[in-house]
Amino acid sequence: MKGVSIIGVGLTKFGEHWNAGFRELISEAAGKAITDAHVDGQDVQAIFGGCMASGRLLGQEHIGALIADQLGMNPVASTRLEAACASGGVALRAGIMAVASGAYDVVAVGGAEKMTEVSTEEASTALGGAGDQEWELFNGATFPALYALMARRHMQEYGTSEEQMAACAVKNHANAVNNEFARYRKAVTIADVMKSGYIASPLKLLDCSPITDGAATVILCSSEKAKKYCDTPVEIIASGQASDTLALAQRTTLTEMKATKEAARQAYTQAKIQAKDVDFAEVHDCFTIAEVMATEDLGFFEKGKGGPAAAAGETALNAKVSINASGGLKAKGHPVGATGIAQAVEATLQLQQRAGKRQVSNAEIGLTHNVGGSGATCVVHVYKRL
Amino acid sequence: MKGVSIIGVGLTKFGEHWNAGFRELISEAAGKAITDAHVDGQDVQAIFGGCMASGRLLGQEHIGALIADQLGMNPVASTRLEAACASGGVALRAGIMAVASGAYDVVAVGGAEKMTEVSTEEASTALGGAGDQEWELFNGATFPALYALMARRHMQEYGTSEEQMAACAVKNHANAVNNEFARYRKAVTIADVMKSGYIASPLKLLDCSPITDGAATVILCSSEKAKKYCDTPVEIIASGQASDTLALAQRTTLTEMKATKEAARQAYTQAKIQAKDVDFAEVHDCFTIAEVMATEDLGFFEKGKGGPAAAAGETALNAKVSINASGGLKAKGHPVGATGIAQAVEATLQLQQRAGKRQVSNAEIGLTHNVGGSGATCVVHVYKRL
Repeated sequence: MKGVSIIGVGLTKFGEHWNAGFRELISEAAGKAITDAHVDGQDVQAIFGGCMASGRLLGQEHIGALIADQLGMNPVASTRLEAACASGGVALRAGIMAVASGAYDVVAVGGAEKMTEVSTEEASTALGGAGDQEWELFNGATFPALYALMARRHMQEYGTSEEQMAACAVKNHANAVNNEFARYRKAVTIADVMKSGYIASPLKLLDCSPITDGAATVILCSSEKAKKYCDTPVEIIASGQASDTLALAQRTTLTEMKATKEAARQAYTQAKIQAKDVDFAEVHDCFTIAEVMATEDLGFFEKGKGGPAAAAGETALNAKVSINASGGLKAKGHPVGATGIAQAVEATLQLQQRAGKRQVSNAEIGLTHNVGGSGATCVVHVYKRL
Repeated sequence: MKGVSIIGVGLTKFGEHWNAGFRELISEAAGKAITDAHVDGQDVQAIFGGCMASGRLLGQEHIGALIADQLGMNPVASTRLEAACASGGVALRAGIMAVASGAYDVVAVGGAEKMTEVSTEEASTALGGAGDQEWELFNGATFPALYALMARRHMQEYGTSEEQMAACAVKNHANAVNNEFARYRKAVTIADVMKSGYIASPLKLLDCSPITDGAATVILCSSEKAKKYCDTPVEIIASGQASDTLALAQRTTLTEMKATKEAARQAYTQAKIQAKDVDFAEVHDCFTIAEVMATEDLGFFEKGKGGPAAAAGETALNAKVSINASGGLKAKGHPVGATGIAQAVEATLQLQQRAGKRQVSNAEIGLTHNVGGSGATCVVHVYKRL
């Protein structure tokens, strides 16, 4: 396969955007990325966009065409990809394959979700479509409940504590203080998390990522041409994707995500690295227990040791492995379709030494981990300076 | 780019499936295609699925994961693509690029829609999300209305008549009589069409494709390995895709689809052919006026001559160019996410001389034309025996 690199990135602030609709968010992120990449809009030969639930949230499908239209880029081919909360990750893979195939040299890959136009109940129901509608959502199992089941089992099997999970939130909020694009730039303490109300026991409000608006874009270029546009391109040296059962009840274990393990296995093989070679990772912490499990399933810690590692500070900025330097889904926010691309933006900024006060020192190898639903899709990418 | 061929196809009957849900439709089409391709399920390395509106129609997103799960194919990577009624077409392109990139040798590409679980009004509203929700659907412009505007303008500019449009429906119903997978295997006359009630003047009931359930699958393989599995692979020798404005009101003309012209230009260039070299085409006749315009925009007839050509029988089976030998969206049915893949199935059957009584004689070059919404996305593929 031909090498593929990121030559520009763009991000909106994540939050509740009362003054910007879906189209405005897309424009802002894409405009910034095109500027950052030093390409003309006309250099962009195709567009791939990740979006989960615009039909339910906005009454709007046909998001690919909407993006090209909004950006004034007709007749460029523009396509939407969906894999629930991993929509951004699969869009990134589609962009990579399009360039690797030789069909295009430069493509834009975006992700966006406008979630606050509807009530929280409506948004939760739409998000529930990431699980098994017939066997889970229909019976009332929204996502906090599904992840609470995983947390309870992890606590039972490995002794993981609520305080250990809380440590993930505390660390991610601390990182977000230094991220101008993050929604919650506010430090919290273990005590704050522990006294926040239960959403689905054992998960409390501050264990949960927020319903958020936002958009993110990366510009991809074949590695052989990347330095024409950008002095510091970041190559995507691996892309793994795997599936698992849609419904949690069908799995043989609740305490690991098999799709994460398989996607990581593919990615490490392609990149010719091991987990210990990863300097920083943006992992899918839709709930704190998800971060605990991700750090185990990605191989950073043994199974069952993710909670103690977080509590011991081993995932803090510039500790053993820097996890969610951006603030993660928890504190940066989780506009579902945008998340996978926002992770790639952070990996790029880190490898280009542009991450300011949250810069990972000596960042050489970065990894992003994007999960759909309760783990039925997982996408893992690995990044390195070209 | 590496060559990519179709080595197996599968289709459900199109219709109202009261006894089969979305999952059962997918299983049936995929199972048939895997059998037809003489591959083991384990040979399939990735899945791409086109689906437009499962969120609105079924409360279910995360369709890629659902497909892998339903087919028992975890942990194979499985991804959904959406481009409204061109969801199948963009899924096919994603599959082609994945194989062309060298990432995979064998992939399955499917399309499906289960549309009859909700009321016709709810389905129409969901379909309206293919247009511009804010500027069209919100104001009541559902799809029959949008295509009626195009028809009126075509009639005014070129003298196209309701009888000429009706001729497309009559011809497509005649072809569907010989297609066991078609929904309406019943011949109709011009008089039948003319006396069917107006849906949105000048379009009458028998000018409109029906809300339908169905699924379709093709198995793709790198052309270099295709003959390991299949004696008669069909190579996809071109893939074009283009975008246009989401809203009809933003266009400079209502009587042509610029995205069709651009996607066709790309495809003809890649295939090194001209329109006159095409022996048969499956075009996107969501309404009869759409077929008239498609036959013009694809270059089979001059602008304004599509109506007279249809009325003169030039698009009938084995006439100048065989258009919609399958029965088209009008008579075969239009389960939106499945349509683009079902077109590829028909092209394959025709080139393999497996189309029975609707066989196009001397079929050498086939074309499929899949449109999203009112023309904001168009995907064109060209096929030839390997």
